[in-house]
Amino acid sequence: MAGGVPAWMTKLCRISWTAIAAVFTAIAPYAAADEGMWTFENFPAATVKAQYGVTVDQHWLDAVRHAAVRLTLGCSASVVSGDGLVFTNNHCLAGCTHALSSPDHDYFKEGFIARSREDERQCPGVQAEILTGSENVTARVNLATAGKARENFTAARDAAEVALEAQRCGNDPTLRCQLVSLYQGGQYWLYVYRKFTDVRLVFSTEIAIGFFGGDPDNFTFPRYDLDSGFLRLYENGKPAHTPEHLTWSNVPPREGDPVFVAGNPATTSRLLSVAQLETQRDLFIPVNQLQRSELRGRLIQFAEVGALQEQAASLSLFRLENTFKSFFGEQLTLNTASFIEAKRAAERELRQRVAADPKLTQAIGDPWSTVARLQEDYAALYLPYRQLEAEAGGRSRGDPGHFTSSDGSILFAYARELVRASEERSKPSASRLPEFSDARLALLEKTLLAPEPVDSGLERLYLEFWLSKTREYLTAHDPLTRLLLGVESPESLAAHLVAGSRLGDPAVRRRLWEGGRASIEASDDAMIRYVSKIDSAARELRKRWEQTVSGPIDAASERIAKARFAVFGDSVYPDATFTLRLSFGKVAGWVDRSTAIPPFTHLKGLYEQATGEDPYRLPRSWVNARDRVNLDMIMDISTTNDISGGNSGSPLINATGEVIGAVFDSNIYGLGGTYGYEGSLNRTIAVSVLAVSEALRNVYHVNSLLSELHARAPAP
Amino acid sequence: MAGGVPAWMTKLCRISWTAIAAVFTAIAPYAAADEGMWTFENFPAATVKAQYGVTVDQHWLDAVRHAAVRLTLGCSASVVSGDGLVFTNNHCLAGCTHALSSPDHDYFKEGFIARSREDERQCPGVQAEILTGSENVTARVNLATAGKARENFTAARDAAEVALEAQRCGNDPTLRCQLVSLYQGGQYWLYVYRKFTDVRLVFSTEIAIGFFGGDPDNFTFPRYDLDSGFLRLYENGKPAHTPEHLTWSNVPPREGDPVFVAGNPATTSRLLSVAQLETQRDLFIPVNQLQRSELRGRLIQFAEVGALQEQAASLSLFRLENTFKSFFGEQLTLNTASFIEAKRAAERELRQRVAADPKLTQAIGDPWSTVARLQEDYAALYLPYRQLEAEAGGRSRGDPGHFTSSDGSILFAYARELVRASEERSKPSASRLPEFSDARLALLEKTLLAPEPVDSGLERLYLEFWLSKTREYLTAHDPLTRLLLGVESPESLAAHLVAGSRLGDPAVRRRLWEGGRASIEASDDAMIRYVSKIDSAARELRKRWEQTVSGPIDAASERIAKARFAVFGDSVYPDATFTLRLSFGKVAGWVDRSTAIPPFTHLKGLYEQATGEDPYRLPRSWVNARDRVNLDMIMDISTTNDISGGNSGSPLINATGEVIGAVFDSNIYGLGGTYGYEGSLNRTIAVSVLAVSEALRNVYHVNSLLSELHARAPAP
Repeated sequence: MAGGVPAWMTKLCRISWTAIAAVFTAIAPYAAADEGMWTFENFPAATVKAQYGVTVDQHWLDAVRHAAVRLTLGCSASVVSGDGLVFTNNHCLAGCTHALSSPDHDYFKEGFIARSREDERQCPGVQAEILTGSENVTARVNLATAGKARENFTAARDAAEVALEAQRCGNDPTLRCQLVSLYQGGQYWLYVYRKFTDVRLVFSTEIAIGFFGGDPDNFTFPRYDLDSGFLRLYENGKPAHTPEHLTWSNVPPREGDPVFVAGNPATTSRLLSVAQLETQRDLFIPVNQLQRSELRGRLIQFAEVGALQEQAASLSLFRLENTFKSFFGEQLTLNTASFIEAKRAAERELRQRVAADPKLTQAIGDPWSTVARLQEDYAALYLPYRQLEAEAGGRSRGDPGHFTSSDGSILFAYARELVRASEERSKPSASRLPEFSDARLALLEKTLLAPEPVDSGLERLYLEFWLSKTREYLTAHDPLTRLLLGVESPESLAAHLVAGSRLGDPAVRRRLWEGGRASIEASDDAMIRYVSKIDSAARELRKRWEQTVSGPIDAASERIAKARFAVFGDSVYPDATFTLRLSFGKVAGWVDRSTAIPPFTHLKGLYEQATGEDPYRLPRSWVNARDRVNLDMIMDISTTNDISGGNSGSPLINATGEVIGAVFDSNIYGLGGTYGYEGSLNRTIAVSVLAVSEALRNVYHVNSLLSELHARAPAP
Repeated sequence: MAGGVPAWMTKLCRISWTAIAAVFTAIAPYAAADEGMWTFENFPAATVKAQYGVTVDQHWLDAVRHAAVRLTLGCSASVVSGDGLVFTNNHCLAGCTHALSSPDHDYFKEGFIARSREDERQCPGVQAEILTGSENVTARVNLATAGKARENFTAARDAAEVALEAQRCGNDPTLRCQLVSLYQGGQYWLYVYRKFTDVRLVFSTEIAIGFFGGDPDNFTFPRYDLDSGFLRLYENGKPAHTPEHLTWSNVPPREGDPVFVAGNPATTSRLLSVAQLETQRDLFIPVNQLQRSELRGRLIQFAEVGALQEQAASLSLFRLENTFKSFFGEQLTLNTASFIEAKRAAERELRQRVAADPKLTQAIGDPWSTVARLQEDYAALYLPYRQLEAEAGGRSRGDPGHFTSSDGSILFAYARELVRASEERSKPSASRLPEFSDARLALLEKTLLAPEPVDSGLERLYLEFWLSKTREYLTAHDPLTRLLLGVESPESLAAHLVAGSRLGDPAVRRRLWEGGRASIEASDDAMIRYVSKIDSAARELRKRWEQTVSGPIDAASERIAKARFAVFGDSVYPDATFTLRLSFGKVAGWVDRSTAIPPFTHLKGLYEQATGEDPYRLPRSWVNARDRVNLDMIMDISTTNDISGGNSGSPLINATGEVIGAVFDSNIYGLGGTYGYEGSLNRTIAVSVLAVSEALRNVYHVNSLLSELHARAPAP
């Protein structure tokens, strides 16, 4: 009975208490086994050759890079036909299917099939990007920040960033430039992307098969998800010409096959100092998880009120639960004494190596102590900074223009973008907040003005939640709480703001965007007025945060990175930054306690798992197709590749460069992957292209797509 | 602006990083300043005499003890008239006012005033208890458990407990016996209480004044709560004769006055070993807080659906938010490195003292390592044990018969009590689960059969939540999850169970209770059938938990306690156990950073804080009375007494034994009080009897009560 209960938490506790310690003491000098999310510029081809016998040469790398797509939806993808067809996950399309839905059609739930190219529908606000070039600009950034007092560090770096981006990409409407900080500022690279602003939805499965097993099965394996879908890149109103695409494999993968993942893993924190990890463990993650948890409860109960509420909240809830589970795993990893001990030992070793070299010591100083001291400033300022700026309105600030995320009040986000843009655009580009520099306005405008459903009940929920948590965490009598609430309650203020705002109408947003400062000042929109009232306090907090917390930490981290390079060279990979990386590994299951988990699931298992009750209820299409589909077809695949969040949708590639799947998840051991990789247990989970073909053929009958996928292209 | 932002979290971080370390290295040998929740048998009268010049002799102690009341509502109180009048907090009456409410009258919200004794209404299921005697029975319990293998430890102790209680109290309907484990099993005492099973509601304020400032102001000070109310003890249908009552003070307290708190602080964990604290920090508190947080969100959103839902959920939400905030403070304390370091140092010192004494070493062995090793078993079994047994149905098991708590499915709790009782009562008393021994059946029956409102929407919410969290934490494919859910979803199963159960009707419960095993087996009530199906799995988990986790930990903790006695004698106080304690201190504010917080608030401040919006909206009674009340009257009082949760309602007593207030809260620094006391910052908050008198006189016009309170009794 309960004896061998595999509670996933207990599993995570186990991973840390036994295996990880050994790994981390070694992380600094060299990566273990299949560890690493490597840049294309510094891929360990020799290791791969030695370990797997696969030759990854420049030709191979270029071919893969040219087909690797980054989506502003926060996902990865790959080009799989000469006509701009893009393969990704079903869950990566959620922002698009949700935005295109109406009370009559819930494409997020029901799926979407364009049976001809005319039926393909533009995804509002979505941009696709392919990395075409990169340049190491470390020296130029260092020159710009050299000698800057710590509190001016961020401003100097931002200015260099804006200048470099403008210089390289100018106003070329086909390019996007991005300055990328690798190794915590140890290197700066300028990435140049070919961008596609017209991205259309081609095919998306029903959520019930794309996310079969739902949140309970998320991050578990064996798994039975057809988490797949297609987009198409358009240029000048026509499908883009993309001769450099990946070939759609029709060969079943076998256990042990070497495989690669090319995609854009989101932030990892493997190079953080111990003091920073402790702040994550003791403050950042707990506060965010507790808020997330309450919000989850509110959304679940909101969705139970009726079908429209369920539709409105479904995407947010899906994302929130996914994020919650990820951080739950991260928290457990950080809560494990042996894990932190191992990190501490590795840091001690690096510091000793620096101390043993007087010249290096003089160059580096003691940035670890600086970072540790700054954690107190972090703790003191984090809550007001989070509530007023970083997560104001309940939404992460992140890259502006990410309006497809609906995890907070979108009306608030619109208003803040409009209010700030009106102020910033009246300055020269180099003096603005960097996200409003000329080079970035195009994407910002695109997302700001894209149509997006706005549910007033959900908006009230988010605002109420945000305001009440601000009051709770800052206390009711704090001047910032008083600024936000006046004498109103969160409930009444939220209701007033939503009722008094017309920003849900894209035409209203366009008028305010184009009217600039005068029209913002003249606007009587309740949300515009509200954001205008609180914005200087929010900006002030951001400035203080950058000057006294994040800037000084970044400056010290650069010195730690220099120490690491001096001691270990560039034999390490940088933390993930939602930019293009390549990871290597093999098709493999693992041994879970004493049970061997095989690396494949098959369509047969899907039908066996279907109980008929959510989240194990098959969509009608699959129930009807039962007698037609090949039950022996491989469905999901487990591999040893090292990945992270933004890797969703990344092509899983075999040795000959064919795409054999799309990465959509990790197993539960991968949840702690933000902080480390443990080769015997961490696994990447992908959906097999064979299952996708089978579904297109025998479930959805989309033969046009099948033919397009199977039109052969030369292997790289 | 944000510079000096007093976010309460940051405050808590500060307390730990600076002050606590010094305290904890010293906790073992002697308590600091006003620290300690002392038993009446071991009160440090000499210290108090030296520090405050107050003589606390046996006469004083007896007089206070005879008037100190424990309520099965989970609170403390005091007898304040010769006719059984009992003074406590408004929030302690919530279980009663909520149970007496109907769609027409929400007494929890609107308050209750009995203008004559005929109007006083019996609180369903509530019992009041006054400690009349106590006996140290350590030797007898040790004899019973001596030589028991670790896995039989709990059973042997339970049997001794049942036997001792039965022997002393028998079936006397006026007595309750309770075996109390002090110092983590270092001592066992048999407490004898005079019990009052007929407790009636006399007076309760509106929640808006009882809990003015609501959750945002909870655990803060300055505070403006009239958190007060009255009950009356009845015997044989008449007000009880209680000549040994406390005198209601009419003298304004002054800063520096020595004061005492007599009440029943709930569980503290100050004597836990470091390994146990780490389990609390890394597993127990995070899991419970995350679940609590999501449930909070669900309840908030549920309450927004309509007025009836709001009424149904209000008490649960109030309790949940209070618990959440307490644990938030505890988590922060445990997350503080300097705190754990100080605990570690204290433990090291004790172990060194033991190691230095070979004879002691031989007697004690190394229980610390045993406890540390057992934490892995704790972690492995905790989640299934929690979900299936300790918090099954979403309710803490705790003492059976605590049905007045509604923080989970009450239908599930009724069913489990009925199903288990039917099985247990067919055995001899000594062989039963201890909570079903003959001596305890009276209270169990009383609470089980008491009328209690059951809201079917709220019941579904609780069951859905519990089932979905069980699936989430144990995984969907775990045999226990399958046992609980079968192929149903949490949503559908919860709906079936609630629709198919009639246990909300007290008459149905009575028939099943009286019908015993046969009627349970014959019942087609959906909840009875469901609980019957899962109960053997739940009992099995409990048995494993007691045999492999809690029992062995208790046995080892007894040895640690013996070590502590051997080294330090009984100059320490035991952890709180919701039994009678006395703490000493003085009326005092504190210095918060550089701001002096005065020890009193006045009615004037209440009116200044009232914005008219919840939770700062005064009830009409107070708005209307503005011109009549004495605005200079002391309202709330801050003191240095060391308290804990169950102390709510405890009398605050001056040197002459008069009651000057009722304790209702601590300041935010007190939130970490579960693990330690820091005299310069921890404060107890009480409502002043002067404000209560003023309210009775000029707001509520209850002169009968005023006369009764001011009838003088001899001082102790």
